[in-house]
Amino acid sequence: MNESNTNTAILLIHCPDRPGIVAAVTSFLSEHEGNVLYLDQHVDRGAGVFFMRLEWELEKFTIPIEALEQHLDPLVRQFKMTWRLYLSDMRPRMAIFVSKIPHCLDDILARYQSGEWKVDIPLVISNHETQKDTVRKFGPNFYCFPKHKENKAEQEQQELKLLKEYSINFIVLARYMQILSNDFVSHYRNRIINIHHSFLPAFPGSKPYHSAYDRGVKIIGATSHYVTEDLDEGPIIDQDVARVSHRDSVSDMVRIGRDLEKIVLARAIYAHLSRKVMVYQNKTIVFS
Amino acid sequence: MNESNTNTAILLIHCPDRPGIVAAVTSFLSEHEGNVLYLDQHVDRGAGVFFMRLEWELEKFTIPIEALEQHLDPLVRQFKMTWRLYLSDMRPRMAIFVSKIPHCLDDILARYQSGEWKVDIPLVISNHETQKDTVRKFGPNFYCFPKHKENKAEQEQQELKLLKEYSINFIVLARYMQILSNDFVSHYRNRIINIHHSFLPAFPGSKPYHSAYDRGVKIIGATSHYVTEDLDEGPIIDQDVARVSHRDSVSDMVRIGRDLEKIVLARAIYAHLSRKVMVYQNKTIVFS
Amino acid sequence: MNESNTNTAILLIHCPDRPGIVAAVTSFLSEHEGNVLYLDQHVDRGAGVFFMRLEWELEKFTIPIEALEQHLDPLVRQFKMTWRLYLSDMRPRMAIFVSKIPHCLDDILARYQSGEWKVDIPLVISNHETQKDTVRKFGPNFYCFPKHKENKAEQEQQELKLLKEYSINFIVLARYMQILSNDFVSHYRNRIINIHHSFLPAFPGSKPYHSAYDRGVKIIGATSHYVTEDLDEGPIIDQDVARVSHRDSVSDMVRIGRDLEKIVLARAIYAHLSRKVMVYQNKTIVFS
Amino acid sequence: MNESNTNTAILLIHCPDRPGIVAAVTSFLSEHEGNVLYLDQHVDRGAGVFFMRLEWELEKFTIPIEALEQHLDPLVRQFKMTWRLYLSDMRPRMAIFVSKIPHCLDDILARYQSGEWKVDIPLVISNHETQKDTVRKFGPNFYCFPKHKENKAEQEQQELKLLKEYSINFIVLARYMQILSNDFVSHYRNRIINIHHSFLPAFPGSKPYHSAYDRGVKIIGATSHYVTEDLDEGPIIDQDVARVSHRDSVSDMVRIGRDLEKIVLARAIYAHLSRKVMVYQNKTIVFS
Repeated sequence: MNESNTNTAILLIHCPDRPGIVAAVTSFLSEHEGNVLYLDQHVDRGAGVFFMRLEWELEKFTIPIEALEQHLDPLVRQFKMTWRLYLSDMRPRMAIFVSKIPHCLDDILARYQSGEWKVDIPLVISNHETQKDTVRKFGPNFYCFPKHKENKAEQEQQELKLLKEYSINFIVLARYMQILSNDFVSHYRNRIINIHHSFLPAFPGSKPYHSAYDRGVKIIGATSHYVTEDLDEGPIIDQDVARVSHRDSVSDMVRIGRDLEKIVLARAIYAHLSRKVMVYQNKTIVFS
Repeated sequence: MNESNTNTAILLIHCPDRPGIVAAVTSFLSEHEGNVLYLDQHVDRGAGVFFMRLEWELEKFTIPIEALEQHLDPLVRQFKMTWRLYLSDMRPRMAIFVSKIPHCLDDILARYQSGEWKVDIPLVISNHETQKDTVRKFGPNFYCFPKHKENKAEQEQQELKLLKEYSINFIVLARYMQILSNDFVSHYRNRIINIHHSFLPAFPGSKPYHSAYDRGVKIIGATSHYVTEDLDEGPIIDQDVARVSHRDSVSDMVRIGRDLEKIVLARAIYAHLSRKVMVYQNKTIVFS
Repeated sequence: MNESNTNTAILLIHCPDRPGIVAAVTSFLSEHEGNVLYLDQHVDRGAGVFFMRLEWELEKFTIPIEALEQHLDPLVRQFKMTWRLYLSDMRPRMAIFVSKIPHCLDDILARYQSGEWKVDIPLVISNHETQKDTVRKFGPNFYCFPKHKENKAEQEQQELKLLKEYSINFIVLARYMQILSNDFVSHYRNRIINIHHSFLPAFPGSKPYHSAYDRGVKIIGATSHYVTEDLDEGPIIDQDVARVSHRDSVSDMVRIGRDLEKIVLARAIYAHLSRKVMVYQNKTIVFS
Repeated sequence: MNESNTNTAILLIHCPDRPGIVAAVTSFLSEHEGNVLYLDQHVDRGAGVFFMRLEWELEKFTIPIEALEQHLDPLVRQFKMTWRLYLSDMRPRMAIFVSKIPHCLDDILARYQSGEWKVDIPLVISNHETQKDTVRKFGPNFYCFPKHKENKAEQEQQELKLLKEYSINFIVLARYMQILSNDFVSHYRNRIINIHHSFLPAFPGSKPYHSAYDRGVKIIGATSHYVTEDLDEGPIIDQDVARVSHRDSVSDMVRIGRDLEKIVLARAIYAHLSRKVMVYQNKTIVFS
């Protein structure tokens, strides 16, 4: 997060790789008194694609931010750039989806309350009433949309309407035990973060700790990823693991895994909020 | 390994779980002046099976080791025990199978030369001549059995004959790029240790680093396991992982993975040599 | 934790090492129909001391629990045992001490609320009012004892009185920024768990992340330990680490460290609650 | 390492931080057809210092490499840059210092033999004859300089002479159990890599595993660092750790630690060879 009070702009760019991109962009900022705080770049040599994240101070920047697009246009055309701009003084708005299991929700709400993240969480959506009281203690509104085969499409429409009303920028599935429809996902492409309770691609599906126990693995994991149409197949943002042994039952793995899940999910949210994640060809670039 | 000069006996037992097993076995040893150095036990509650590893000093033990089976017999019948006995003064004999890639072989040979392990390695078998000179520098004999579809069965028979001549107790596949036949495996059940260059069950098969790169995982791994008829499906002995990022190409993963592979393989060999591994229902118990 | 409803007893024993202890104790339990669920033992060969943790079912156990001490007495005398007994149906009572920083407190309260641990937390004590509202949301009473040089001894007496009134069994310092006096510590020997925000013994004292940054370490850590008279020198229960780089500022380390601290503290509390920790010569045995 | 056959140049720069450095340097390369392959930069905000590592292709680069200094001069003056230039077709020459313990030496020699690193190792220096045969098997010359208080200064002079004759660029202490004099160190500032068998700054000195055992830590480590006048205080290049428990004796820690030491040392050598390490104020920047 931006620790100072200085307003900064963050530009995420990707374009076909060719010589001179860094020189062109940094010279552009330099000419307009934009002091660069962070520059991260990456070239995917197989795909021939260049990625860059730039953060610069706005204080002395001579281009008004609303005119930036126009000023950038020649560079965008020259290098065939795709770009996104974020301003540090904009607080992203996040919705949480949760079912009954509380540990990821609890962890996020505690961070929210302590001000650890620069984010607003105006609402939590669930398919159960279980976490209503917890959520309300921490401030967000709580909405319950129970789902079964017949009402799922309709409930999702209600949820989408609500998300729009609340001007939600991105969604976190904090152990939400419902599969989102392709239609729903298409409204928040690369803006829905899920936590899967295994070291993907090992053990996709709904009972990964049972599968891990049955296979006799010596390490279990958790994976945070953006949600795509293909279940548990979206771009991986972060993963972590813990050692287990023959002594650990399925319920031991569940216990150990809970701590992995909440930390890995929190790290993904932090990277997303810091505008450090770019997605390309179902993989992520996560700048450091 | 046994660090003192004291001769010890190691007994590995498994049997249906029921009350009184530990009391019966430890009382038996105590009555015959067998001072227990290590006792490890485990109950698989799902399967209802009890596992135990006992190591005791032979110095004052009043039963001659060749008569132990006879003396144990009443306990074995009472508890329906399956057991194996190892003596610390017996040096296991190990064969290495290797193809062209040297890092696991090199690591094992260096440990062998330094006397890190209590083991003899009289021979190395390969399907290529590549590592002949390296092997001979360190002492073991080197045999080359090139394999193709037509001669595979015959070559394996030659290998089995050789392994018998050398009184080999167990085999280590140090990046051996040939699939062993079911017949071959049946001669060394739970006595062939393989290293797979992925975090199994993710990425089985022959190109795991390419698959890991394509999937965009943030952690790669290596897995040591006993070889069974089902490729990359045998009981896992040990695993370890390393963090990677979007910056790591396939060849970076190969480089990082090499260090994982040799260490995880060495740890599995050490556990096997220490008689700390028991196999049950395609899983291992690895006592600490 | 004990996951079934069965009542069990847990016995922690240490005594001079000599042959026959396991046989004697397990035979004793077996004779009285005490079905052993877990047996862990350890011998510190340097110190010549034997440690054991036994857990057995009380259902068919033929000795009334209140008569156990009397029945154990011959064994205790024979082997010069020191022992402690815990019953699984007893809920330990824990007090939390906290200052202003909330993440460890929040994590514990969330676990408490979800019923993850078998524990009661009737009160939280702080030297600041900062966390009062948070604590009360979750149920425990909140008491504030501001401290300065002059009133410290007196305030501690008030705290001790309160801990006694609430029948507190053990104390968790969840980032409590006050040094407890030797007198206070002596009332809860090996029953006060602290979390230190470094990989002890590196960086003791109050600013470990600054020291870690200045020294340029590539890994930071957190350490949970029992509090003794010597600051940051008590027996270590658990530790964990995270990788950092030159890119991480002190405030990045603080952020990364928070997640380490809360997880390592929670693991120590769980081990303590599970009666798996024994202390000897300023070190812990933590059974698995 | 450079995996292609393309010749590249690597430029390491540091200078006072100010706006426009990246733009100036990348524009300079761009104007002279130097296609940038990697760009890494870092700003130490506390110290106000900018660091950059640039790697570019020489194929179409219009400045002859011997004239680069002259062409860079205006930039160097403008930004007060300190810089070093490396060419990928230059093979660095490395000397190994070792005492009796072989595992780090063995690991380096195996990597050398397999061609894993782009390096020449013409000689190994030791204060014992122990590793002579091993070294000669792998090719390097072996020189023995036994040391005691009286002859140390003189022996170091002989060593320095030899290092000069062999045109050695940097030195690796592969468990060399002698302290180098300040004079010796001054000849290879930030070019002597040591491996210390603990997680520094915990447990400096000669018996870290004994200290770790006595303190009862739950994690042990190894640290590679550049050697400075202050023993075990030099800039840390890499560290890694392994979990231990009360079950692990000092000799178990030594065994587990050996694997850490050799891998951490190898990673440091690789980073150094890849020209990815910069040293500033007794800390390293290790570009990824």
